[in-house]
Amino acid sequence: MEAAGRGLFITLEGGDGVGKSTQAALLEEWLTSRGRRVVRTREPGGTEAGVEIREIVLHHRGDIAPRAEALLYAADRAHHVATLVRPALDRGDIVLQDRYIDSSVAYQGAGRVLDPVEVRDLSLWAAEGLLPDLTILLDLDETTARARLDGARTRYDRLEAERSDFHARVRAAYLELAAAEPERFLVVDASRPVDEIAAEIRARLDDRV
Amino acid sequence: MEAAGRGLFITLEGGDGVGKSTQAALLEEWLTSRGRRVVRTREPGGTEAGVEIREIVLHHRGDIAPRAEALLYAADRAHHVATLVRPALDRGDIVLQDRYIDSSVAYQGAGRVLDPVEVRDLSLWAAEGLLPDLTILLDLDETTARARLDGARTRYDRLEAERSDFHARVRAAYLELAAAEPERFLVVDASRPVDEIAAEIRARLDDRV
Repeated sequence: MEAAGRGLFITLEGGDGVGKSTQAALLEEWLTSRGRRVVRTREPGGTEAGVEIREIVLHHRGDIAPRAEALLYAADRAHHVATLVRPALDRGDIVLQDRYIDSSVAYQGAGRVLDPVEVRDLSLWAAEGLLPDLTILLDLDETTARARLDGARTRYDRLEAERSDFHARVRAAYLELAAAEPERFLVVDASRPVDEIAAEIRARLDDRV
Repeated sequence: MEAAGRGLFITLEGGDGVGKSTQAALLEEWLTSRGRRVVRTREPGGTEAGVEIREIVLHHRGDIAPRAEALLYAADRAHHVATLVRPALDRGDIVLQDRYIDSSVAYQGAGRVLDPVEVRDLSLWAAEGLLPDLTILLDLDETTARARLDGARTRYDRLEAERSDFHARVRAAYLELAAAEPERFLVVDASRPVDEIAAEIRARLDDRV
């Protein structure tokens, strides 16, 4: 539960299609214009070893046991934090990261295979307790998110309905995490225009950078 | 801390050069002659995914962060236990395994990078609490082990002296683990003739197979 070094550790969270990359790009631009050095990164796969680990999780022939998968993601996180995130924070940089511990906890909670509390503990051990200074949760209701991802399609089969149910659970899990740590989280309504969202994020950071 | 299923889970532990493979082969022969089905395996790398994981730990260019390495070994263990060891025990087979949790704890304890208790907890989470029914520790004093490994060499440089010190710490860590769980461990003096050691192991197992 330790605070970051001299830099600032900002993570972006939310389901697929909520606009994390767009907001990260806008935020990086603004921070850079203020003279801050920004390191943009992501998990999983933010390091060379991480790419190799991700390869196993995604492309291994045959299933990976659930705990093994969680441990592989934690290994990726441990290496990423130790070799990239912490050194950047120690230099005083701002680390802007797509997905972190909250992703693991929210998705695991929604998937209902492993205990989310255990997954969180595992992640914290991997990261030697490093939590973000700010986590921006881009929150989008299920219907809008699905419309964005599916475009003009109007019919949904059973698999898609299940997927929709899963996404609703991910969203609920994220909101629960945000409610438990209101100081760390900024929950943003991601259905609004891109510029409005960016302005809200900047306002939150204005006195810190 | 759960007991194995219907089968029997036996692990062999000890430093390099103490004779684990030789004793595993003799024990397998004896168990098979008694009509038991034996699965011989090892960690790390006892599964296909495990081989890929081991590849990263051993051959990745550049260092892997210590916690990442521990998590990769734990991932290998989780997958190995879930897909190979437990199914074999559930079938009633005897699993004869070269190295398991005690290796992680003893080597980590000797290396003094991570807390051995944390490494043990991590391993137990990975293995869903599976501990061996019997762990055979082949114990060999440092001088004999070094002589076996180095053959006829008589001079040692600083690096070799350090290595010798490391091996002495691994041995001490193993003996400490054995002392803490005398019911699970059989500590064997590995300086004796191969056949005597094999006989001592068979005697311990005689009423169980």
